Order: sequence, then C-alpha cells, then structure tokens
Amino acid sequence: MSQALFLSDNAARVHPSVWEAMQAADAPDSPYDGDAVSAALDEKFSALFGRECAALWVATGTAANCLALATMVQPHGGVVCHEEAHIEVDEGGAPGFYLHGAKLLLGQGEGAKLTPDAIRAVIDPIRDDVHQVQPHAISITQASEYGRSYRPDELAQISALARERGLGLHMDGARFGNAAAFLGLPAAEVAGDVDALSFGFVKNGGMSAEAIVFFDASLADVARYRRKRAGHLQSKGRYLAAQIHAMLEGDLWLANARAANDAAQEIASACSDRLMHPVEANELFVNCTAAEREVLRGQGFAFYDWGDDAARFVTAWNTREEDARALATAIAAL
Amino acid sequence: MSQALFLSDNAARVHPSVWEAMQAADAPDSPYDGDAVSAALDEKFSALFGRECAALWVATGTAANCLALATMVQPHGGVVCHEEAHIEVDEGGAPGFYLHGAKLLLGQGEGAKLTPDAIRAVIDPIRDDVHQVQPHAISITQASEYGRSYRPDELAQISALARERGLGLHMDGARFGNAAAFLGLPAAEVAGDVDALSFGFVKNGGMSAEAIVFFDASLADVARYRRKRAGHLQSKGRYLAAQIHAMLEGDLWLANARAANDAAQEIASACSDRLMHPVEANELFVNCTAAEREVLRGQGFAFYDWGDDAARFVTAWNTREEDARALATAIAAL
Amino acid sequence: MSQALFLSDNAARVHPSVWEAMQAADAPDSPYDGDAVSAALDEKFSALFGRECAALWVATGTAANCLALATMVQPHGGVVCHEEAHIEVDEGGAPGFYLHGAKLLLGQGEGAKLTPDAIRAVIDPIRDDVHQVQPHAISITQASEYGRSYRPDELAQISALARERGLGLHMDGARFGNAAAFLGLPAAEVAGDVDALSFGFVKNGGMSAEAIVFFDASLADVARYRRKRAGHLQSKGRYLAAQIHAMLEGDLWLANARAANDAAQEIASACSDRLMHPVEANELFVNCTAAEREVLRGQGFAFYDWGDDAARFVTAWNTREEDARALATAIAAL
Amino acid sequence: MSQALFLSDNAARVHPSVWEAMQAADAPDSPYDGDAVSAALDEKFSALFGRECAALWVATGTAANCLALATMVQPHGGVVCHEEAHIEVDEGGAPGFYLHGAKLLLGQGEGAKLTPDAIRAVIDPIRDDVHQVQPHAISITQASEYGRSYRPDELAQISALARERGLGLHMDGARFGNAAAFLGLPAAEVAGDVDALSFGFVKNGGMSAEAIVFFDASLADVARYRRKRAGHLQSKGRYLAAQIHAMLEGDLWLANARAANDAAQEIASACSDRLMHPVEANELFVNCTAAEREVLRGQGFAFYDWGDDAARFVTAWNTREEDARALATAIAAL
Repeated sequence: MSQALFLSDNAARVHPSVWEAMQAADAPDSPYDGDAVSAALDEKFSALFGRECAALWVATGTAANCLALATMVQPHGGVVCHEEAHIEVDEGGAPGFYLHGAKLLLGQGEGAKLTPDAIRAVIDPIRDDVHQVQPHAISITQASEYGRSYRPDELAQISALARERGLGLHMDGARFGNAAAFLGLPAAEVAGDVDALSFGFVKNGGMSAEAIVFFDASLADVARYRRKRAGHLQSKGRYLAAQIHAMLEGDLWLANARAANDAAQEIASACSDRLMHPVEANELFVNCTAAEREVLRGQGFAFYDWGDDAARFVTAWNTREEDARALATAIAAL
Repeated sequence: MSQALFLSDNAARVHPSVWEAMQAADAPDSPYDGDAVSAALDEKFSALFGRECAALWVATGTAANCLALATMVQPHGGVVCHEEAHIEVDEGGAPGFYLHGAKLLLGQGEGAKLTPDAIRAVIDPIRDDVHQVQPHAISITQASEYGRSYRPDELAQISALARERGLGLHMDGARFGNAAAFLGLPAAEVAGDVDALSFGFVKNGGMSAEAIVFFDASLADVARYRRKRAGHLQSKGRYLAAQIHAMLEGDLWLANARAANDAAQEIASACSDRLMHPVEANELFVNCTAAEREVLRGQGFAFYDWGDDAARFVTAWNTREEDARALATAIAAL
Repeated sequence: MSQALFLSDNAARVHPSVWEAMQAADAPDSPYDGDAVSAALDEKFSALFGRECAALWVATGTAANCLALATMVQPHGGVVCHEEAHIEVDEGGAPGFYLHGAKLLLGQGEGAKLTPDAIRAVIDPIRDDVHQVQPHAISITQASEYGRSYRPDELAQISALARERGLGLHMDGARFGNAAAFLGLPAAEVAGDVDALSFGFVKNGGMSAEAIVFFDASLADVARYRRKRAGHLQSKGRYLAAQIHAMLEGDLWLANARAANDAAQEIASACSDRLMHPVEANELFVNCTAAEREVLRGQGFAFYDWGDDAARFVTAWNTREEDARALATAIAAL
Repeated sequence: MSQALFLSDNAARVHPSVWEAMQAADAPDSPYDGDAVSAALDEKFSALFGRECAALWVATGTAANCLALATMVQPHGGVVCHEEAHIEVDEGGAPGFYLHGAKLLLGQGEGAKLTPDAIRAVIDPIRDDVHQVQPHAISITQASEYGRSYRPDELAQISALARERGLGLHMDGARFGNAAAFLGLPAAEVAGDVDALSFGFVKNGGMSAEAIVFFDASLADVARYRRKRAGHLQSKGRYLAAQIHAMLEGDLWLANARAANDAAQEIASACSDRLMHPVEANELFVNCTAAEREVLRGQGFAFYDWGDDAARFVTAWNTREEDARALATAIAAL
C-alpha cells in the first residue's frame, strides 16, 4: 500500500520548472547577489505588485520573517502578532535572536487572524512609559496558521491602524500563493499595504528560496546588511534567484497554489461538518477521534494529529487528484 | 574572446554528481533534518574522521563558523583569531550577532596562520579580571586566507595550548579539501584535535551546503537549537544533505580539491618569484603592477586586485587545464 | 493638608543607619568590588542563610533579576514565570536584553504565585524539538506581585520540580524582607532551595543597593563578568556594599519589613471585605469605586488606581502609624 | 607611615557638597526620574552648554558610554574609537552587549587621541559592501586615556568629518572636567559638536552618578528606553540627580578638576624629562624603573605600574597639596 502524504507542504517535491531554472543558472556568474539572475528580481516583483519593490532571497521563511521584522523593530520594542503565529510558536525563538531581545506581544483572534480590535486589545493597555515594551510593528500571516485568508478590507483596516500608531507592518506569506489563489485577487490586493512581505515559495514547489519583498527601499538597504550578518547571503545566490524566477514565470506560483487549494477543497467538500475552520487555503483542520485517525492511517493516509480530537491535512502543489479524492471518500466513510 | 575566471571558487558551477544526488533526493521525505539523507551524515563523517562525529548541514560558511563558535563562547567571552581571518574581515559582523556581542581577539602570523606564540601574544596580556574580555575559544582556518595549510604538528601545538588554557578550538575549513589535497594526509590529521570543523563544500563543487562537524556531541546538541533559531534549518534539508553525501562519496571532495590545487600549481610554477605566499591550496597571491594586471585582463583573465601591487587568482574544481596553462604562460610573459 | 504616601515603597526615604554606613565607607578603598566592605558580603549572607553564598551588589532589582537569570539561561532557552511577574510586565524588556533574546514562558496562578501544576501547564505542552523554545529556568517572586508569600512547602515542591526537569531556579526577592517578616521564618526557609536570589533592599530602607545572592558559586563567577559588561560594576562599590551591611546588621531588613507589614495589617483589618488578595506583605489591593478613591484622595491619601475598580496601597518601612490608622479609618468610613 | 594614594581618581572620597545634596533629596518624591531633582537636569545642562540638552543620569561611565552609543549605532554597524579607548580595553565587552554585537573599529593616534587622518585610515579601507562592518559612529575621549585634551579646532575637524560621513559622534567625558580645567574654555567648546557626551562626575567628587548629555533630543528618547532595559533606571533616582546638581552648582565640577589638575602639574614639574605624555589633565605616565618604583612605594606612595618601565599616577579632587609635593620631591630625588 502506497502512502498518500498530507503531512505538510514543506517537504514536497521540487517543481520541474524550478529544477530547470536552477540548471540554467549553472554557468558561473558573480557571487552572492551580484549575479544577473538576482539583479532581475526587483523588477519582477515590482511588475507583480504594481509598485516599486526591492526583493531579497533567503533560504527559509524564518529568516525572511525575522530579517523583515528586524528592519522595523528596535531591540527595545515589540511586535504584535497572533498567539498562534509561526514566529511565536514554531521558529525556535528566532525573533528574539534577530530582533535582539525585542518582545512578541500576543493577540487573539479567530482562525489565527488578527483584527484591529484584537491589536488594540494588545497595545492599548500598554502604558506609555519606559517600564513596558512599546509596540514597533505588527505581523500578520496570509494565509493564517489555520489556513484563513485576510480580505482586502481587513488588510486595509489593519494597515490603517498601523499607520495611525506609527507601527511597521509585516506579512508572513509562507502560504501567500494559497491565499491569492483562494481570494482570486491580484497580488497587490492580497498583500495590502504592508511594508514587507515574506513571500513563500518553498512550500509551493520551490526548493530553498523565499523572497523578502520590501515596499520601502530603505528597509531593504538595512536588510541586506542583516542578511549577510545572519549568514544568509549564499555565495551561489543565483540558484536561489533562479528558483524564484521560475515560480514567478507565467504565474507558476499561482498555478501551484491553485492545485493545492483545489485538492483541499475536494477533501473539504466531503467533511464540511467536521471542519474546525473554513478552508481558505491548503490546510484542513478536521474533527475526528483517535480511532477515526487510526482508520485513516490504516488506509495509507499520512497526516498530523491536531490535539486530541482533530487531524491536520495539508495539500501541496503536487497532491494527486486521486489521493485527494480517496481521502475525501475515506473521511466521508468514517 | 572568452573569459577565464580566476575570481573565486565561490561561484563555480555545481558538480554533476551533486546535481544527481539532489535529484535523487526529490522524493518526499520528512522535513528539516528528519529525513534519511540527513540522518546518514553522522555516520559518513564518523567514518571519514575515524571517530564519533555529529554533523549539521547549513547553507553558508558564515553560518557554519558562527554556529560552531556559539557553542563554545559565552556572550561575555572572546575568540582568538587571525586579524585577517574571514570571521573578522568578511562576514559582515556575523560573529558579533551569533555570539551575542562576544569579541574577536586578533592575532598576527605569517600567511594568515596562527601559532601558539601568536595566540599567547594575544591572550597573555589580558588581565584576568572582569574589565577585560577573556578568551573562550580559538578559531583557525585550514587552508588559511592566504592559501596556507597547517601541518599536523602545528595543529597539535595549537590544540595542546587550547586544552591547557581551557579554550574551545574551531577550524574554519571553507577550503578544508584544498588543505587535505595539498597535505596528502587523512582528514583526521588535516583537522587535528579541534572541537568543531566548518567543512566547506560550496567552494569545491557543491551548491548550498556546508557541514559543521562536531567532535563533541554535546556541542552539536546546542548547535541544533541555534541553527533553527538562526533560520538555518531548511525544511527541505534533504537537498543539502544530498549535496554533502555526493561530495563525500568516493572522496569527490578530495578529487575536486586536487584538481583546483593542480591548476594552482601549474600557475605557480610559472611565477614562483612573484608569489607573496607559498601555494598550499588553490589561491595565488601574485606580485604584479597595475599595468601588468591590465595586460592580463586584456587577455581575458578575470581576477581580483590584491591591494595596489598584487593580484589574487583562485582556481576551482572545474578550472580548465588549458586556462591554467594559458594564465601561467601569460604571467611568465609579463 | 499634608499627604500620606501609599504610592510605593520604592521611593521612600533612606534609613538613617544606611546613611551612617555609607558615610563610614567614605575613606578611600580599592575600587569596584575590591574593597573590604564588598569583600565581607559573602560571609554575611552565608551566615544569614546558613550555607555558602556568593553575593554581588547591583543598583536595581531589574539588574539583579536579569543578571541572575543570565547565569542559568542560554540565549535559545526560556524562563518560566508568572504572567504578572515584574520581569514580564515592568522591566522594559530587560530580560530580553540580558538573556540575549531568551523567552519568558508565562504561567498563571492565584495571587501572582506559581505552583508546580502551573509550571507544568507551561512546560509540558512544549514539544521537545528545536522549533520550540525549551525552558531553562523558573523565576518566582517572594513576596509576589500581589503581596502573597510562598510557604516553605510550596517552595520545596517548586524546587523539586526544577531539579527533576533540570531547570535553574531564581527568586525575585524585591520584597523578600516583607515575606520573611510575614512568614516569621528564617531567611533560609523563606528562600527555599533556589539557585539565586535577588535580595531587595531599596524598597526597604536602602538607597541604591540590591544583592544577588548565589547559592552556587559557579553562577556567581559568570555573573561577575556579566555585571561589568552591563555597566553595573560601580567604581565606588563600597557605598553599595555599606548599604547592604547596614541592612543586614542587627536584622534591620527584618525590622523595617515588619514595620511596613504592620502598617499594612493595620489598614487591612479595616477593609478585609474589600481585599482582592490576602495581605501577606506590605501591599494592599482594595476594591473601591472611582468615587471612593476620589474621597480618599481628597483626604490626602496618595496611591495608585488598580484597574477601574480597585486601588493599590503600599506601605513602607517609614509609614507612620498614624497615617496607616488614618487610612484604615478612612476606608472603613467609605 | 600613612599612604598617599595616586592609584586612581575612581575611588576617591565623595565631596561634602555632594553628600549634602543627597541628604537634601531624602524627602520622598516620585520614583525613577519622575522627581523634581531629575526633572531639573535638562535645564541645568542646557544652561551650561548654551544649547538645548536632554540629560539622563546613570550609575557608571560604562553605562553612559554604551547607552549613548546605542542610540547612534545599529547592531550591524561599527564605532570608530582609539585602540586604547576605555570602551575597547576596559569595559568588559560592554559595547558588544549594549550595541548587540556591533563592532569597535580601532584607530591609532598619539596620546590615545584620534585625528581625522586616523579616523579615515580606519574607515576608508572598509569596502562599501555588506561583507564588511560599516562605521555608524565615532567615539572620542576627552581627556584621553593618556590624559591628553582635544583642542576646539581638533574637535571641529572630527565633527566635520563625522557629519561628512554621516556618522554619529560621541564623547567619553569620564574626565571631561579635567579637560575643561586644563583648556580653560567654556564647556561647549570642550565638548565641541558631539551628539552625546558621557559627562563624568564619579571620578571628580561624585559617588554614583554620571550624566549622558544628549544634544539631539531624539537620541535621548531612545536612551530612556534603553536605560530602563539595562536595569539602570534606579527607583530612587533623585539621589543620583542630586549628586549631579551639586557638582554643577557653582561649577564645583570645575573647581574639583582644577584641584586635581594642579596636583598633577605640581608633580609633572618635577619630572618633565620622564613624562611619556604631556600632562593635560590629572594623569601622569612617568618613565621609571622597577627599582625606582620600589623606592617610591617604600616611601608610602601608591600607584599602578604602567608596563615594565613606567608608572601611572592619578591625582584627584582631594589629593592633598603636601602629598603631591612630597611625590614630586621623591621622583626628583630618584
């Protein structure tokens, strides 16, 4: 019995077009980000977002998130984020390292999404004195850790609040493509008016390249130094840049994300009564007992438990339609 | 006129065997370093060095060096290194970041190599009180920044001093292969009795994977947390592990390094009177005037100036024999 | 109308004996902590606690807490503390600074006290992998931020848990004297089996000297370097040491704390039905309306609001009996 | 035989006026820097320097220097200072801590003074790329570590260079008073056009208070947060503020410095042929053999060796005229 993997999109195969682009970059070129492939990234992202961008490749989402935030947050400041945000829960304390001890200020909200009210509930009680850590930035995740997508008006409200309070605004877009595919909107509207976006490709068909997209060039200037200082400036950077180009080319990032989302919807349609969260990307959180999970695993499906009473299924760009259908059927039959 | 590149080995092509191994790793496996390819690294390095090793992949030499040192040096301590060491000169302050403000204590020595006397000249004048930063570790580079290789007895003296003073000992082996190829000795003798080795592959035919080899497992345990915290734990780590396996397989690392060294010797033989340093790896520092450099560049050779009166030529695993010969001839003809 | 101050004990006068001791230290002596007065501290604290101690003076409780914790917690680790602990709420992010980005892991518990269950509720859900920050130490406050005192058996349970899990244990004793006075127990039993105690004197009649008492000499060795590195090694340290000696002499610290506690009890007895927390030190949290607080302020009492529906009153070593009585009467008359 | 102390000015007695001012501040007031005494500092310094100042007290020169620099230097940047500067040599790595790993970039210059040429020799060779730490600020010491004073035109040249290169400028004024007394110029001319001055009082008759004087209010706003975060915001700050007021009152700081300088000149006049450096403050570096030092110590003079062939004598505000004369005579008689 072969296994159908729904563990995570973070270990899926690399897309053939990405392989090709990497191999096409094999000719020697200048090291670090001095090569032609890296140099062409700004223009590509500027075209995609319809405004001036400066983009830096890095190897991981953790590095992308933390380098982005490091440009907005002084060591004595804080970052408002959801209490279930990846930067809080799953990055091994990386924000504490990159931000030199700055503090994550935790908010709540359905579906791991922040709202202006939730943000105000975090920052309004902070006394405006030196005894308490003051907020310097907000970080939101698109799609969220529960696979929920922010709508443009929600983003507009959050960015308005950020401007009003003089806070930086960062978006963790590890699954930005999945949000865009779900929303069916241009990238610019999916990102909203953030200062920096961690644009994820690794979960979406890439191998080892994420982009930090800065909409404020002065932040990118700082990030360049910080990236080197963090040991993230790879000498053969052209192989990372090539991955990103391949993903942007012909909107492969969108196509891949759509494929993953479609697979997720296929499954969702079979278990809508069991869903803990609406499926707005490529993750499903499905109520089911330990016994039921046992049954599914017995049928060859691999996935993570989510607490005691649920399971998490993640689809990827290369999830086979028949596997998604099989899982849908299996869940329906529980 | 085509260009013959002697700029640096850090942007050379990726070796075909490395490509193959990466593609062979394309099947999904556990993320991070939970995959089978990553798990097999410890054994491979243990076999190579003839003693128990724990090995972690990372994307860059800077990350390797700094993560290794972070396991030996407290934030209030210092690291003795050569004043021309890469960690001091060319890593954008990464040691300050990874070591949380620990200090580099700079020594001198011919060919960018440290000697026990040079180390003592740094640490003996340090007053043993809280007003001065105390040394916690020593870092040496094999081969050195001037392409010089430490002999086993030199290493033995340095490690004896480190033990005597209770200091950690780290080796930056960005060009470890070149040193090994030059010395013609087993890897264990080329490394000596260090606590951790940054074993470089990127300059030697790899794409984006270096190894930190710990000879003390407790240090590796700490490094694992620090690697994640630094955003260097890639989710598709198997592609990095695969590169390293390919390099170790059949001692490709040695073969590649030998090829680079041979090219360097070919050139060296033509300009022995101009050499600033004996050629003990794959770098040549050649005295020549600006006018002479102009001539060489006019003939299609690419390389860096080294100050006002010299040039640096670096060969790589894929330097063509005819290019090396042509450069040798051209220099001889100056 | 003169004002009766119940704002905080942190700005009270300096006790006459402390002044005298400072002046007695005016003769020149060795700088930093090389003077005879500083050197005598270890012995004094060892006698008080009945076991070997190493004590370092610092100027503030924040510095004491953070320097103590820095000896137990690596930058990639975490500290379990109460969500209302001073280190979390009121130290301006100092732990993030001193611990180089280590994380505070927040627990809950009545009266701002932690219990073994509360600690387990924090640390047991932490996955034992590199993606989550692992606990390295526990910090508790004696008396707590709500003026509650840990009993010896409560301390024994917490220290047993700390040992079992291999965690350091720190006590923030900004009001250690008040806890000791309330409990009526020897200092050793009030401290329990912690690794380091921030022994507060500034709130209890001192001017600018707190002690970090280490019950593990190796931690003190590290702290000495960290203190200097933090700019807390004052050159005329003898004036700080003298303050501490004066406070320990004839158990002035206990007498002062008793005076403060007695005043608190005087007030408590008049409003037991309004108390949010039992009064086990020198702080009272009293339910009362904004209108009632207005009345009290109109009568010359100064104090802080505690949220919308309560007031906080803090007594000090020099709170006058008549003022305490007057406040008691005034509250009773509300 | 009584001892005449020339070890350092850092452990001298506290001036009677300082004691008085501290005692006058004993009445309770708002904690931290909310008291009236602290609040009055800005005005006092503004009057002294003839321009708007914001002043913060801290307990040590190390804290003053590092907090000042932390407002000008990002963690990935560097500070140009003399290789014998106190921040490099004697602060236990505090800059690495406070600046989060920023680097000290070491210059040379006679008498531990920097010149524009010396500064350019440090910063001009730094490649303007992310691989090398870029300078963010310059720090100079007035009077220098060898007791040399910068003249106004020297300061003007340095500040012009700082402006030209966009660098912050900090002055370590641990012995600012001695420089001012030597130069006989207004404070503003002794400070020149720096962004922040660490104005030392502890070595000059104070007990435990130094001032960071900011000539740019926005820097002070940052420093306030950093001071708290470093545990340097004492709750009874009024006792520190009072010390500074006492020192400024009637220019006591100048009178004290003059007394120390006069004593130094008295000694200098007896050994001008032995002086390693012109005496422009209150320190003397005197060539003398070990045997000669033995003789002087036998006569009751206490001082530090300076290497193998010299002695360092430091006078203080309270050095007795007869002691200075006696030392002068003794040296002359060697």
